[in-house]
Amino acid sequence: MKSAIVELEAKGKAAKAAAHRLAYLSTDIKNKALHNISQDLLTGKDEILAANKVDYKEAEASGMSAAMLDRLMLNSSRLEAIAQDVLAVAALPDPVGEVFNMHTLPNGLQISKKRVPLGVIGAIYESRPNVTIDISALCLKSGNAIILRGGKEAIHSNSALAKVVQEASVRAGVPEGAVQFIENTDRTLVNHLLQMSDIIDLIIPRGGAGLIKSVSENARMPVVTGGIGVCHTYVDRSADVNKAVAIAYNAKVQRPTVCNALDTLLVHIDVADRYLPLVAAEWAKAGVEMHCDERALAILKPHSGLKLMPAVDEDWGKEFLSLVAAVKVVDSLDEALEHIERYGSGHSEAIVTEEYQASMRFLNEVDAACVYANASTRFTDGGQFGLGAEVGISTQKFHARGPLGLKELTIYKWIIFGSGQVRA
Amino acid sequence: MKSAIVELEAKGKAAKAAAHRLAYLSTDIKNKALHNISQDLLTGKDEILAANKVDYKEAEASGMSAAMLDRLMLNSSRLEAIAQDVLAVAALPDPVGEVFNMHTLPNGLQISKKRVPLGVIGAIYESRPNVTIDISALCLKSGNAIILRGGKEAIHSNSALAKVVQEASVRAGVPEGAVQFIENTDRTLVNHLLQMSDIIDLIIPRGGAGLIKSVSENARMPVVTGGIGVCHTYVDRSADVNKAVAIAYNAKVQRPTVCNALDTLLVHIDVADRYLPLVAAEWAKAGVEMHCDERALAILKPHSGLKLMPAVDEDWGKEFLSLVAAVKVVDSLDEALEHIERYGSGHSEAIVTEEYQASMRFLNEVDAACVYANASTRFTDGGQFGLGAEVGISTQKFHARGPLGLKELTIYKWIIFGSGQVRA
Repeated sequence: MKSAIVELEAKGKAAKAAAHRLAYLSTDIKNKALHNISQDLLTGKDEILAANKVDYKEAEASGMSAAMLDRLMLNSSRLEAIAQDVLAVAALPDPVGEVFNMHTLPNGLQISKKRVPLGVIGAIYESRPNVTIDISALCLKSGNAIILRGGKEAIHSNSALAKVVQEASVRAGVPEGAVQFIENTDRTLVNHLLQMSDIIDLIIPRGGAGLIKSVSENARMPVVTGGIGVCHTYVDRSADVNKAVAIAYNAKVQRPTVCNALDTLLVHIDVADRYLPLVAAEWAKAGVEMHCDERALAILKPHSGLKLMPAVDEDWGKEFLSLVAAVKVVDSLDEALEHIERYGSGHSEAIVTEEYQASMRFLNEVDAACVYANASTRFTDGGQFGLGAEVGISTQKFHARGPLGLKELTIYKWIIFGSGQVRA
Repeated sequence: MKSAIVELEAKGKAAKAAAHRLAYLSTDIKNKALHNISQDLLTGKDEILAANKVDYKEAEASGMSAAMLDRLMLNSSRLEAIAQDVLAVAALPDPVGEVFNMHTLPNGLQISKKRVPLGVIGAIYESRPNVTIDISALCLKSGNAIILRGGKEAIHSNSALAKVVQEASVRAGVPEGAVQFIENTDRTLVNHLLQMSDIIDLIIPRGGAGLIKSVSENARMPVVTGGIGVCHTYVDRSADVNKAVAIAYNAKVQRPTVCNALDTLLVHIDVADRYLPLVAAEWAKAGVEMHCDERALAILKPHSGLKLMPAVDEDWGKEFLSLVAAVKVVDSLDEALEHIERYGSGHSEAIVTEEYQASMRFLNEVDAACVYANASTRFTDGGQFGLGAEVGISTQKFHARGPLGLKELTIYKWIIFGSGQVRA
């Protein structure tokens, strides 16, 4: 263990040394590295798939669930898609080097902010081996060094992929050491990594709620937390009922396992009789189970073919990640706002309304990363928002909120051009 | 103790409730609150000074140092200056509500970012009672609720000042609960405060290095760390020697007790013979003690009237906060860059040079909050940079770097205007 920690610290130091050079590496070299990676993923396909097969067989033998096995599995077409995604990152504009807010002070100092990488980013992730490539590509493009720590179950796949990234990027002129991969899967190493605040500027955990919680509680450096989305859609008394059905259907059904899917539907009492049977009928076609408060239940009970259950206290503020929705009838916009304030996770919240005043109040008053009027919360996504790739979705209120793209992996430094000025 | 924790949590909840309303309070009301505070500081002068006298006498009796007593002490003119500073904050533009990056996506969604307050800010500070007013004014103006936790030694002063802030702001229409003051000075309460990550969005520690370290190690929420400045000035071979003398003199002498003052002077070998005696002569007039490496010592030894000492290892990377400077002769710009990378604290670093290439390398390659060409590092300051007031200076690389003004007490949320869009 001691030697593993010594090795980890050596990797950290190498990453930090590389980060200093990466910070002002030309866009050309970074893009060349990404093109090399994309190409090598294809030419090295056999080796990568063979490594993945080893992981898969071991996982299968250990009794891993089918869903988890599917996350772990690579094949030709998945590898091609990953290689394509790397090219998409190469095509994005380089966020580094932008100079902004330049102005001249009365004493003649020319002062500005210059966008620079964060430095060294640590990624701690589970199962999906594509994260090795995704995060590496985003970090390289934004000029950050990276320390990769993937899950034990994907160690052979991740190791093969990391080797591709390392070789392909060095071949393009990226400083050696920029991409570090931790082969040792001992859990105590993660704890040590989370203490290395002199080396690592940001930790990105990718995986289940347990991983994210444990990382954010133990890390001594900033952590991108998020991904927990308890999302509400509030159907106001003035809502266009057809829009409201389409939006709630999309938000719940289009991809129920993700963080921006609908969890709780709030419906104004004035529109509940008309609206609830319509949305319930649509949801029923997709097999959605509705956990209803008393009033919603009373309205829906007479209708057949629905999966209805009385809601329990734990349903409010629960992220279902499945075809289940909590449903509550409210007396007013105020009650909806209070419910969201109490139970929301600050991810994505929507109102469906035709009233100007109601939409403005909702957009102003709801404290969440993304607030919508008359649209599905499913749009909360770096790709949908036009950021290109995304590292994750932040529900923090520090540094960046919502989808995190390349720019969010950077910070600025102040640059001051003087001509001998001293402070009076 | 238990009841103190219950009370603390109640204050936290009240602050959070107020924060939701503060977030969209009009600029008029916020400015009115600041004008009221400024006025009440003057009309309540006798009461505040009487409270301060109690603190001062207790501190004096307990044997507090003269420097600390001076920090604690309020008098008419200091109070007037504080009241004036509050008006200056009122005069600054309101950062909240700015909408930026608005654009329309191909599907018709109108998407933008809107600047909003962080929420609830906790301030933990020592001695200087003016911090109670400073931080309150900045938080109110930026729409944040605040929980104030001042030092035991200033409890009567802080309590009187917090009362002024609370009454004056509520009178202007600020929601009650927006400004919370913790009367109980038990240290364990601070530990509890630092765990309240569901309530507090940001902690600002103001005080010595010990306080900042302990807060940043124990807080479960983001912390503004900074204020530790190990600042280098590098005099390049091509430096204009007169500028370099003026800059090093200013950086060391103008106010030696602050974080942006010069700690280490690095001098290129080619200019050392000419430059070092000149700067040493100027520094000697101000009583600066120089801790010199061998080569600097050899150059300066023949000159009389200087306070010279051989540098020891601990001098490199030390923040002196006094009229002491470490001095080292280097062979090249590269050696200077390496020294700064190794020993700098990422605060403020300067080069004095007439070579274009050297200035560009220094500005690009040095990884610090503020990098200067041909100017004194003493300019690193919110007021000097034109931000108006400042909350502190960050040496972190997350959220904001360098001087933190009102804008840095805010974040954005994504606002999306739809017309029924659903995700395909």
